[in-house]
Parts: sequence; structure tokens; C-alpha cells
Amino acid sequence: MIKHVGILCIGDELLDGRVSDKNGRHVMSLGEDRLFQVRELRIVRDDEDRIVQALDALSSCDVIVVSGGLGPTADDRTRESAAAWSQDVLHEDAASLQRLEERARERGYTLTENNRRQCSFPSRATILATEVGTAPGFRVDHRGCATFFFPGVPREFQWFVQRYLLNELTPDQHAPRASARRRYYGLGESKLETMIEGIEALARQLGARVGYRASYPVIEVSLKAPDDTALTELLTFIDARISPWLVAEGDDDFFARVGRRLVEHKATVAVAESCTGGLLGGALTRTPGSSAWFERGYLTYANQAKIDLVGVNPATLASEGAVSAAVVCQMALGAARAAGAPYGLAISGVAGPTGGSTDKPVGTVDFSLHTPQGTFHKRAYYPGRTREEIRTASVYTAMALLLWHLEGRLDAHAVRGPFDPARVEAGVPGAS
Amino acid sequence: MIKHVGILCIGDELLDGRVSDKNGRHVMSLGEDRLFQVRELRIVRDDEDRIVQALDALSSCDVIVVSGGLGPTADDRTRESAAAWSQDVLHEDAASLQRLEERARERGYTLTENNRRQCSFPSRATILATEVGTAPGFRVDHRGCATFFFPGVPREFQWFVQRYLLNELTPDQHAPRASARRRYYGLGESKLETMIEGIEALARQLGARVGYRASYPVIEVSLKAPDDTALTELLTFIDARISPWLVAEGDDDFFARVGRRLVEHKATVAVAESCTGGLLGGALTRTPGSSAWFERGYLTYANQAKIDLVGVNPATLASEGAVSAAVVCQMALGAARAAGAPYGLAISGVAGPTGGSTDKPVGTVDFSLHTPQGTFHKRAYYPGRTREEIRTASVYTAMALLLWHLEGRLDAHAVRGPFDPARVEAGVPGAS
Repeated sequence: MIKHVGILCIGDELLDGRVSDKNGRHVMSLGEDRLFQVRELRIVRDDEDRIVQALDALSSCDVIVVSGGLGPTADDRTRESAAAWSQDVLHEDAASLQRLEERARERGYTLTENNRRQCSFPSRATILATEVGTAPGFRVDHRGCATFFFPGVPREFQWFVQRYLLNELTPDQHAPRASARRRYYGLGESKLETMIEGIEALARQLGARVGYRASYPVIEVSLKAPDDTALTELLTFIDARISPWLVAEGDDDFFARVGRRLVEHKATVAVAESCTGGLLGGALTRTPGSSAWFERGYLTYANQAKIDLVGVNPATLASEGAVSAAVVCQMALGAARAAGAPYGLAISGVAGPTGGSTDKPVGTVDFSLHTPQGTFHKRAYYPGRTREEIRTASVYTAMALLLWHLEGRLDAHAVRGPFDPARVEAGVPGAS
Repeated sequence: MIKHVGILCIGDELLDGRVSDKNGRHVMSLGEDRLFQVRELRIVRDDEDRIVQALDALSSCDVIVVSGGLGPTADDRTRESAAAWSQDVLHEDAASLQRLEERARERGYTLTENNRRQCSFPSRATILATEVGTAPGFRVDHRGCATFFFPGVPREFQWFVQRYLLNELTPDQHAPRASARRRYYGLGESKLETMIEGIEALARQLGARVGYRASYPVIEVSLKAPDDTALTELLTFIDARISPWLVAEGDDDFFARVGRRLVEHKATVAVAESCTGGLLGGALTRTPGSSAWFERGYLTYANQAKIDLVGVNPATLASEGAVSAAVVCQMALGAARAAGAPYGLAISGVAGPTGGSTDKPVGTVDFSLHTPQGTFHKRAYYPGRTREEIRTASVYTAMALLLWHLEGRLDAHAVRGPFDPARVEAGVPGAS
């Protein structure tokens, strides 16, 4: 029996355009391998009458998932609405209050009356303890419908879904049993689909499914197959075509993978950043334990900083400009040398929205990777992107160059070099 | 009179996680400067009963905007549902058919029966011609409610909104609403609400509304009042209580505001970052034109880098540790000196998840702001947060210290100093 699920998202901010609903989509995405169908999603304001009406209407579903309105402030009305809908009264839960008091004591703050509101629940509700925030959730069974009230903060909501909702939604017995996920960088979605054309037909033939999810600037390909043999066949098909662009597999994280590879090479990397202003260093230090591969970096936003901190040649800067192969290679080499690191990674580009020219329009970014084997250069162009998108893509490109080099896959990419240090110092890697 | 708007998005693909709704948000975003309020958004499947029920429920609104289900294929049921809801019948529109035939002739294809479906409308509907696709929209006035049926393709939908819906939602010149938004940093949501207790009562009395939105780590307070006098009264109330924590107003951006203040002071800032690894530099360069206030920075992740790049005293490091008032002050002073900048901003903390100790648990972060008036220190503690949350909060804290200093508001915060450079060099600003 397929269960029918209703989703109710509560909050003024979801209806005035300030915030887009993430929680409804999260629940929907579980339907991929579970036996339920989302019948309807509603977004209503923090208004008791509206919330009660929506609960009434959705109670023809087997399960209702409610998101939001459990915060400490007075404009949050979900708990009052839950009580009104189920003809119940609110009741302060001593255990929840005690837990909140302990938390406050540990963190050295005093509970306010508002904090205490978060410990009130309909008296017949089952309280769902939290390990990820201050607001417990709760469950009300009313009119044959299991109704789950979860906090609206997406991180907390997802934790509650995992902990309390999944049990309620039976796994699909016919759902695929073998699955894999691969993330790729440097290919647009339609380019990627073209490169693995035929995968859909193969998947159908094997009773498998292929899904794509573009989360700028990375694309994830997910495969679900009835068994390992079918999965392997699909993976072989894909790997033969797009493996050069792979940046992560399964639950693995791209940036963590870069760090792991550096540790395997017993190497550190130094950075010299211009248009990204530090975001590349931020990416290299995102993973716990990053002191093993990252010790220092140089934010060389101004031209004089490029000269002073990483030894860019003023003559090269004057003749080639800051966004150029010659300068970015001197930045990467100079960063590695100044830091005493085997690897150096540099970015210099036009992030915009102004500052572009005919031959270096906004979105033009030069990259260099210095390695024990020499210095590589790549120019990328991200047209039609915002400043932040260009900076984000630049960080990903730099990280990808380093990963692909460390995994011996750099050859498959449009990269120039390696140039030897003497040529880099002479400003030789000119325009590509 | 504020108009109430209901939004109804139709399509199976919007409920199984394949596609996220963009059209609802598009309508919502118009509400900021127009006299309407979105009362509710519903997403339902391509099912006639569900669509009719939703139209019935939403017809208490002044306007309903319906998106989707107008395609040529048989699974699209919106036109049938519109007819059923308004007790009407479908009728083929000769003019629309002629236009579609012309279009087909121009583009050299033959109309199918399915294409012809797109020319059927409820007989009493007003047909809304399209210039952006094949599907016309239509308007049905029923039960006092102006109901607009638009194609679901976002590009087409937005065109219809612009052409046909906006007229219906023009601001009422005689009853302008006054609104304001303020963003605050450094106060938890419940602390903030406690500090402005009484605002809800005042708002009710003035016919105004107060909203809060926590978008970690910033909280936004939004005010909507019937007129400027009422708005001013609310703002005066709030400003008297929490203005020290203000970081942005209206559409202004916190980081851009920091940059603007630096430009007003004709000053640049240099950074020395440890646990944030570059994210602070990334924040300072996020705003276009940042070369006016940011020239260079030092990523001093390792202890030796702190010594080499910004002149931290090895003895101070050895006695106080990297996460300490003495070291972070030397980092800020050293960054400013090395860069020749009037301001220096430094961060050194335990971002975790490991590396904490009893007196410096994970989440402990030291900040220093060096200024022409001396060097300030602040220690913050972000317990129960992930590594990325601690790093993000650290960037915000550092930016806030700089902003508050530049705006003369630093005194209101728990900050030590200013210490003079000689004392900083001597490692004097010990544990607070």
C-alpha cells in the first residue's frame, strides 16, 4: 500500500519571497526509494486559523509532515495550532525544560520566558527529542493521520526526518538495491548528458535508473540498479566516458578528497589568491585535519601585493597584466617557494561586474598549479555568471586541477605545461 | 486595501522532487513593493478533483494565480478543472486556433489534435494571448475572485505575470505601506526578542507587524506599518534597545557596508587568518570595488606562518598558545604593519571537531582588530556548532568588530582594549 503524504510548511518568510522552502523538497526526494506519494504541499503563514484549516484538509493523508513555527518567538504559532486542531491543550513538558536548562547552564546563558515556550506541547503529543538544536519536535495522531511537527531550520528538519519519519515510510521492496553516486566538475549538464548518451537506454534495459542533479558548479550522477552486476555495467559505461572530470564518489567530499591525496603524497600546498580573496584557502581548510596539508597562503589582491608577497616580476605584470598566464604562473611558483611547499596554487581573474575588457571579459580567470614536475597553466571563462558564481567556480577549478594532478588525470584536461621554473620566472608562459 | 493572493502550482513533477517550484516564488517576490499578501501556496498533482478543491479553498482570496497544466498532453488537466470549478464548459477559441495554425505554418510543422487542446478554454474565460510560447493563458472571474491561469514554464510564466497580473496588483497610491528591515549580529533570536519585548504590543496598537528571520548567523527584523509615522515609532523603539548589534538595513549588505565605511575612512584593512583559512579575506572581497579597501592578507594557518608572515613572537606563541589574546593581537598588529594598512583584523580559534581542551574547548575563537587608536581583543565561544558554522560565525564576528569600530559603536560590546603596540608586542593582552 502506497502511503499518501501531505506536507505543510509554515512561516511568513516562505510566502513573502525571502526564503524558499527546502524542507518540502527534502521529503519529496525520499520518495525515490520508498513507498509513498506526496499528495499535496501547502505553505501557509504563521496564522492559527490557516494552520488548523490546512491540517484538517491534509488529514485525509496517512502522514502529514509539518515544518516550521516551533521557534521561541511569539510569532511562531505551530504548537498552539496543533493543540487546537487535535482538540487538546498545551502542557509544559518537565523533561524537555530540564534538558533546555542543562543546555543553557552548559553554555552559560539564562533561559528566557520565550525559551520556555519551546517546551510546551499538546498534552497527548509524543515528544520527539532533539540532538541538533533547542526545539524538540512532536507527533500527534489524530483522525487516523500520523502528524509530525519538526523545526523549520533545514539542518534540524533533515535530522528529524532521518530519526523519526523514515520508520513511518516503508521501503519500496521493488526499489533498486545497488546504488552509486558520482560527482563531476567542469562539464555542463547538457554536455555531460551528451557524453554519456545511451546510458538511459542501457539503464532501462537493466531495470535501472539514472538521475542528474546539478548543484552549481558540480553535477551529480546517481545510479540505482537492481543488483551489483547491473550497477557495475552502468559504472563501466560512465567511467569510460567522463571519468577525467570526476571529483567525488558516494558520500565523499571533493575538498576532503583533495586533502586526503595531499596527505598520501606527504605534501603541502600554498596558495596565492587574487580575485577569490581567500576562498581557495577557505576550501583547503574546510576539512578537519587540514593543518596536515595547508600551512600558509598569500592574499595578493593588489598588484603590489603580488610583487611583495610572492615575487611576481613587476615587468611581467606591466607587460602581461595581472590576469595572464605569465603572472598567475609566477604567483603559483612564488607561493610554493615562499612557503617552502611542493605545491602552489594561484588564481587571478576578472570576477566583475566591472573591470572586463575585450580580450579579458568579465569571467576570464587564469589558474596555475605549481608542482615538483613544473608549473601548469589553465585559462577558464565563465560567461554570464555573477561575481560570486565566478569566484566559486574559480575555487572549484583550482581544487580540481590539484586533485586531477595528484590522481594522475591532469593530462586529460586542456592545461598547458609543465613549464620549468626558469621559464616561469622569465614570464614565458604567454597567452594560450 | 491589501489584496490577498493565493498561488496554485500544478504538476506531478513538482511533488516527486524532480523539479522545484520557481513560479510561486516569482509571484511572492513581487509583494515587497506592492499591495498584496500571499496568503497561501499549494502544490497539487495533475488531478481534476484536487485542482478543483484547491481553487475552491483559495477562492476566498482576491486573486488566484495558477501555474501549470496547460500543455498539449492529456495528463494536463488544468483547463478541464477550471471549467468544472466555474461551472462552465470548454469551448474551442477560433482566434487562438488560427494563431497556432499560422505559427505552425511559419515553422513548417503540422498541428496535432494535442496542439488543438491548447485552444480550448472555459466559455466565459478571458483569453490571454501569448507572445512567448504556444499556450495562451486565461482569466476566470468566479466567486469574486480574479483567477489567472498561466503556463508553468518559468520563462513563459514570468512573461504572463508581467503582462497580465501586475495591473491587478498595482500599489494603491492612497494607502502606501511603510516597511523597514534591519539585520543584527551577535544576539540569539530569543535574546533579541527579549531585548525588544513590548514591540509586539506596540505593533498591534499601531496596526503594524513585526517579523523575525534567523539566517545563521544573522537575524533580520522586518517591520510593516500602515504609515511612516507608525514605522518611525517602531524603529525608535527598536533602535533604543538593540542598535549596537545592527549590521545592515533594508537591501543593504553587511559586507558591502563594511567596505563602504572603509572607503569613507579612506582606509584599507589587512587580515591574518588562522582557523578561517581565508574566508575573512573572501568576505572582504565579495563586494565589487573591494580593491579600494583590501590589498593583501596572510593565511597563517601553521604557527611558523604566524611567526614568518606577521611577526608573531615565538615566545608569546609558546607561552600563550596560538588561540590566545596575546597571539591574535600580535597577528592583527603584524598584518597591518606588514601590509602598511591602518587596520588589521585577525582570527585564531579552535574550529574543531577535534583540538579542543578544557580551557579552550572547540568553538573558542580569539579576534583582534588593530586600528590607528590601538589594538582590540575579543574572545568568542560558539558551542555546539559544526566546523563550518564556527568558521562562518568567526568571519561575521570579525567583520562586525570592524564595522562597529568604524561606526563608533564598538564601546557597546564586550571588547578589551585598545592596547598600544608596545604592549601588544610584549604579549601583554593576556587572558580576559
